[in-house]
Amino acid sequence: MKLYEFGLSGNCHKVRLMLSMLGVNYESYVVNGSIGEHKSADFLALNPFGQVPVLLDEAVVLRDSQAILLYLALKHPAAGFYPTAVSAQCAVQSWLSIASSEVSRGPGLLRLHHRFGKVIDVASAQQTTQQLLQVMNAALATQSWLVGNSVTIADLAMYPYLALAHEGQVNLVDYPAINQWLVAVEALPGFVTMTGIQLQQNKVNQ
Amino acid sequence: MKLYEFGLSGNCHKVRLMLSMLGVNYESYVVNGSIGEHKSADFLALNPFGQVPVLLDEAVVLRDSQAILLYLALKHPAAGFYPTAVSAQCAVQSWLSIASSEVSRGPGLLRLHHRFGKVIDVASAQQTTQQLLQVMNAALATQSWLVGNSVTIADLAMYPYLALAHEGQVNLVDYPAINQWLVAVEALPGFVTMTGIQLQQNKVNQ
Repeated sequence: MKLYEFGLSGNCHKVRLMLSMLGVNYESYVVNGSIGEHKSADFLALNPFGQVPVLLDEAVVLRDSQAILLYLALKHPAAGFYPTAVSAQCAVQSWLSIASSEVSRGPGLLRLHHRFGKVIDVASAQQTTQQLLQVMNAALATQSWLVGNSVTIADLAMYPYLALAHEGQVNLVDYPAINQWLVAVEALPGFVTMTGIQLQQNKVNQ
Repeated sequence: MKLYEFGLSGNCHKVRLMLSMLGVNYESYVVNGSIGEHKSADFLALNPFGQVPVLLDEAVVLRDSQAILLYLALKHPAAGFYPTAVSAQCAVQSWLSIASSEVSRGPGLLRLHHRFGKVIDVASAQQTTQQLLQVMNAALATQSWLVGNSVTIADLAMYPYLALAHEGQVNLVDYPAINQWLVAVEALPGFVTMTGIQLQQNKVNQ
């Protein structure tokens, strides 16, 4: 497998997390965004949207971080990252949609603004973020994981931009259930930070 | 089944289309947006995001139009709206993510602006829309459906806001493959327009 990625992309971190937790070896190719490599003809042939991550697995070319998580989960069913019941699969899907929409339009956009200088409608992104945090916190107040009793790709799809919320000046202090869930994800075997560092807590567990 | 919906929502149209194509009977409950019923405590108990559609099927409560399409497809596997191969399932997922993100931030937002007066960044929405149209048109220039050789929930998830593009002052004249695909969706048995009308073409087919 070959992963085309940016080092500081939360969407790429999702995929790296999953690959690490599955113990799958892969080649990392860091796309050079500073020279617009993601908009080059070669890269657009892999993903016409010009976005990372892209995962290559022999003849299969996958774009979209949610689709890549689903692919890895379906290829490794024994790892249990995708539930078997239809209603649970659809609950996962509803979080994957949120990862593509509200997360991107909320904490994702605020991070692009505060860390990378993108011009955005800050008030609108903050409003989206606050609603998202309220819904997530309520969901996680009654159960440890977003769907069912164990970690799924829903959690991995949601984790990176919540963990990076502070870079968008989003304070999670009022959302204790989200904080507890972040710690739980970080304690999973194989967890790696965005920059590839295994936390001490996790090292002890292994 | 009970569908909570708005009459003029493209996301609700997706679900109505699928239910009609499957020949599933359901009760429609039109949420009264003009009095903020979608933000009422009763409705927020069904969907804390305060968004339609919501589908109730006995004990199962589903929010998010993409998740509802997946649910209906998985409950009716013989209808063939969801592929069986892993790589095709993930290709479907990548379009579901686009339906949640680029479609919403592009043609969906332009329609909210031009038809319903929402204040948006028009230039940004137009740029997202043009990229989306180019990618879709290129994909549909070499195959009739977005994934594989027959209609899937990827097509149904993408159809409504493309069919409504003109309401956002988006002209599809330069995208012949998209136009051909819209006509193909509208020719499917069970197709209904947003306002519930079966097209003459479709009536003749049945």
